[in-house]
Amino acid sequence: MIALRRRAAAEALGSAALAAIVIGSGVMAERLAGGNVAVALLANTLATAAGLYALIVAFAAISGAHFNPLVTLTCALRRELPARDALVYVLVQVAGMLGAVLLVHAMFGLPAWLPSTKARAGAAQALSEAVATFMLLLAIHATRRRSTESAAAAIAATIAAGYWFTASTSFANPAITLARALSDSFAGIRMADVPLFWLGQTAGATLALLCLPRLFCDGHDAT
Amino acid sequence: MIALRRRAAAEALGSAALAAIVIGSGVMAERLAGGNVAVALLANTLATAAGLYALIVAFAAISGAHFNPLVTLTCALRRELPARDALVYVLVQVAGMLGAVLLVHAMFGLPAWLPSTKARAGAAQALSEAVATFMLLLAIHATRRRSTESAAAAIAATIAAGYWFTASTSFANPAITLARALSDSFAGIRMADVPLFWLGQTAGATLALLCLPRLFCDGHDAT
Amino acid sequence: MIALRRRAAAEALGSAALAAIVIGSGVMAERLAGGNVAVALLANTLATAAGLYALIVAFAAISGAHFNPLVTLTCALRRELPARDALVYVLVQVAGMLGAVLLVHAMFGLPAWLPSTKARAGAAQALSEAVATFMLLLAIHATRRRSTESAAAAIAATIAAGYWFTASTSFANPAITLARALSDSFAGIRMADVPLFWLGQTAGATLALLCLPRLFCDGHDAT
Amino acid sequence: MIALRRRAAAEALGSAALAAIVIGSGVMAERLAGGNVAVALLANTLATAAGLYALIVAFAAISGAHFNPLVTLTCALRRELPARDALVYVLVQVAGMLGAVLLVHAMFGLPAWLPSTKARAGAAQALSEAVATFMLLLAIHATRRRSTESAAAAIAATIAAGYWFTASTSFANPAITLARALSDSFAGIRMADVPLFWLGQTAGATLALLCLPRLFCDGHDAT
Repeated sequence: MIALRRRAAAEALGSAALAAIVIGSGVMAERLAGGNVAVALLANTLATAAGLYALIVAFAAISGAHFNPLVTLTCALRRELPARDALVYVLVQVAGMLGAVLLVHAMFGLPAWLPSTKARAGAAQALSEAVATFMLLLAIHATRRRSTESAAAAIAATIAAGYWFTASTSFANPAITLARALSDSFAGIRMADVPLFWLGQTAGATLALLCLPRLFCDGHDAT
Repeated sequence: MIALRRRAAAEALGSAALAAIVIGSGVMAERLAGGNVAVALLANTLATAAGLYALIVAFAAISGAHFNPLVTLTCALRRELPARDALVYVLVQVAGMLGAVLLVHAMFGLPAWLPSTKARAGAAQALSEAVATFMLLLAIHATRRRSTESAAAAIAATIAAGYWFTASTSFANPAITLARALSDSFAGIRMADVPLFWLGQTAGATLALLCLPRLFCDGHDAT
Repeated sequence: MIALRRRAAAEALGSAALAAIVIGSGVMAERLAGGNVAVALLANTLATAAGLYALIVAFAAISGAHFNPLVTLTCALRRELPARDALVYVLVQVAGMLGAVLLVHAMFGLPAWLPSTKARAGAAQALSEAVATFMLLLAIHATRRRSTESAAAAIAATIAAGYWFTASTSFANPAITLARALSDSFAGIRMADVPLFWLGQTAGATLALLCLPRLFCDGHDAT
Repeated sequence: MIALRRRAAAEALGSAALAAIVIGSGVMAERLAGGNVAVALLANTLATAAGLYALIVAFAAISGAHFNPLVTLTCALRRELPARDALVYVLVQVAGMLGAVLLVHAMFGLPAWLPSTKARAGAAQALSEAVATFMLLLAIHATRRRSTESAAAAIAATIAAGYWFTASTSFANPAITLARALSDSFAGIRMADVPLFWLGQTAGATLALLCLPRLFCDGHDAT
């Protein structure tokens, strides 16, 4: 087992990089797209998928490359990670992502405090987040015994598709939802809508926890 | 052999996810693209190829990741799948994709019943579907002895190219053709034009069945 | 050695598919892009790179997946392919690509005879084709001892980059140059400019033949 | 050890190709994008990432595929490359990239001498370059024991993400910064701003040198 300190450093750095990529590319895309939101979302998708792929390949061998409290929680519930380690993971994920907001604002010359005004309310948005989170956990679960590169590609591809086929653009991560609330671009979310997203994400993760082990037959195949 | 129940669950879930990705990204792309259909189709292509890649990698080891009645039928005709299993596959593929239409409409706040008004008539469209289906089966056939990742990449890349080089944007799948008829976006198809697409797809699959085994020398090479 | 008949069938089918993808996606992209040529070329690039990747993976084990008279000629000059086989390869490459023009026109409801009116004249265009062809042969040469997937990805990526960094959009293939001359879209070329492109391509291939074996040390490293 | 002459030739050719791709695709994208800078940057990103991937796969086995003085310097400081070799690497990288500027201008019919007028000043830009360079060295460091294809994909993906999430579009390379200053497109940089970029890049590389060996535990893990 790798020392918790090193694993925590990997989670913090990887989470910060992921949030910087998601949020920073949102700011850049909105600035350059001249009002065409589809072009902006294409750029945001490309940057996110490319960055996520690279970060998973970089950090999987150290910390497992979670970068997501729900992924960490799922591992803890499956007894693959001690509760104390899981708590540390979640804390550094959140801290890393909040730090990334400050870094992005500094890079783009924005004020440090610039909360999002983008409304994302309603049951359809919560449903979208449930679907997005279920799909993310499906991709993770399905590739857990494949190579790091294969898992990274499948997970990044799932998020890329999710940016377009869910109405919420597939946040699928409570920590990045919080970080997005603190930065105002088309990729942001009003703080008031964050709990709804967390609810949807938790519902999707719960469904995944119930269904996926049976589908992928962890343990043995009874038939 | 994996239990039919599990394989059927994989086909149902994978087909539903594929249809949700194809149709949902069509709705999102049309909403955001500001009337530029090329930008919308780029987004639709990206989401479809990324999603298809991830779903094939996720489910190939369970069900073979068909997600397509013509692929299943081809397997049955080649005696690689019992007729009863093939029937179950096709039923759950269609059911999964129709369910996905409802899910997408719920995510995007659309009425459950919203059939497509997009006309896709004429012999040129049928020819396009024949070409698209032939190319899909070619990619599947050519990569059947390669790694799952290699097959998934080649198949997803073939569909991505097909979205652009065929006049019909390469549906290449009778089940997804039906599902697209039940959702109204630029990626849809009028119900009245569905039989024509099925005809073209069947013709392409028949041609593939006749040519590909000889080209790829299943069995042995006489020379 | 695989029978010449089968290798020729693979070259014919692969070359036809490649030309259909390049030309068909050009027609589609121009129709949908609303006058934004960058968006059209992005779509053309995506379709070409994706299709080329899939076709190389599909046919490399049969014919070597040349789809290009200059690649075939290079192999013949290096004594890797008998002269008679090379002649057959080139004939079926050209025939396949010309057939693909008719197929694309049928799919898109265009007249069979529709030569390009797109001017591509001047020394800068010839220089661009020399650079493009040199880069293509460099990618092929550098990956010849790697896996099929690795070679396919590097070659497709090189062409994707070439579509943008050369002023001629990197035809890099005398047969596809001829086929593009017979179809009128932004991806075409006037018949009058074809010899210039052939000249540039031949110059680039000659330079590659002279430099690359020494750089990549085919045979042995004297140091 | 491969002869220095061959390694230098690989670095010169690879660096020239990389600079030609970055700068040439910038010129082409600006010409075609009709004023939509997001579309132009998408094309520039696609070409750069694809080209970088192919060039790393092509040249890694010969020279290590640095194409970047800071990468070479880092190797020298880690005693992985003799100082004399490092000096030769840096000289041919710069020479190759400056030659590429002339080649691009010839391909696009531009005057040989056409320095950039694009302002990129301010601390936020320097910070962006520090972040971009740190991320590049992180990707290189994290994949140094993986396959060439894996490293190439992670590095290209990191640069693709960097083009969008840093405010400077992630030059991350002092030699390419200089080359971009000599060509006038949206991807260029005023000569007056080059030292600032170099400063940021050096700061990012220094931070990477201090942090990454501990994070990735080169040597041994004390825990």
